[in-house]
Amino acid sequence: MDAVLSRHSTRFYTSRPVSKELLDTLLKAAMAAPSAEDERPWHFVVISDRRTREKIATILLYAHVVTNAPAAILVCGDESMQKLPGFWPLDCAAATENILIEAEQLGMGAEWLGLYPIPGRIQAVRNLLKIPEHVTPFALVAVGYPAEKKAPGNRYDESRIHRETWPVAEEGSRQPRNGKNYDTD
Amino acid sequence: MDAVLSRHSTRFYTSRPVSKELLDTLLKAAMAAPSAEDERPWHFVVISDRRTREKIATILLYAHVVTNAPAAILVCGDESMQKLPGFWPLDCAAATENILIEAEQLGMGAEWLGLYPIPGRIQAVRNLLKIPEHVTPFALVAVGYPAEKKAPGNRYDESRIHRETWPVAEEGSRQPRNGKNYDTD
Repeated sequence: MDAVLSRHSTRFYTSRPVSKELLDTLLKAAMAAPSAEDERPWHFVVISDRRTREKIATILLYAHVVTNAPAAILVCGDESMQKLPGFWPLDCAAATENILIEAEQLGMGAEWLGLYPIPGRIQAVRNLLKIPEHVTPFALVAVGYPAEKKAPGNRYDESRIHRETWPVAEEGSRQPRNGKNYDTD
Repeated sequence: MDAVLSRHSTRFYTSRPVSKELLDTLLKAAMAAPSAEDERPWHFVVISDRRTREKIATILLYAHVVTNAPAAILVCGDESMQKLPGFWPLDCAAATENILIEAEQLGMGAEWLGLYPIPGRIQAVRNLLKIPEHVTPFALVAVGYPAEKKAPGNRYDESRIHRETWPVAEEGSRQPRNGKNYDTD
């Protein structure tokens, strides 16, 4: 099995809990991510308590999946640990992606629920979980055992691949999709 | 083998080229990444040509590894494809991380060379590869076969894991590492 290629978002979970050992493996995977200048500017809050998960769903309606999944991992970025300015969100994204792939590898499912850079979502989670000011809630990851079978979608799109350089004459490739012409801004 | 846990940056490569088929598998892995609202705001430029790789090393001294690796993949973000503002760099980071893990899975090695959000690096690559204004060079990934054997480092750090909520009384956890007190800003 190739977990990178077979991974997909899981939205429905069984009630089977995830063991502390497996949760720790997911966190080990997260911290195995590369980071700019090896800064590792991350923290993780593991949330199993049902009341907390229900509160999250109340303050973030799009995140109701965390009431259904038996656990959630809050990935946070710590700006004070950053060596290269602006890289912490990328480091946290790599760590989050590692959790998703590792969950697939371990026969579980996961879903990435974005928080950063949306101020309202960040503040809501900060208030609920008492996250200090120098730490930014980055993403919530729902984890558990899938209650659905989904074939991985094929998102391969050859039109996004260019060889050696940007194709000067390729139709549509030099104009943004939304019709704005940034060249004349 | 668990490619997420065994992955590490490869800095020395053999001269063995990477087949087009394997490069395409790396790109398939990249595009299997999740993205905000499924926006998939990415492009990939596959660079095998030695002269181009040498030019990259001339304009970006820290990226000299691309003259040693037989190929490099430039991951780009397309802001015009973005549905949720501010998420494209996170989507590109997930795609980049997938390339690194897939390379490990396929017995190859890779290294993430950061471009975004450093303006000078972005502009240098934009100029060299004629990347249009609405597309942002995000990262270069060197890929090839490792000429070195490295054990994966253990980056697991239990002090970064918190249970259920942020620990109010935990020593050092409420103050940023660099001594700045953001609470009083």
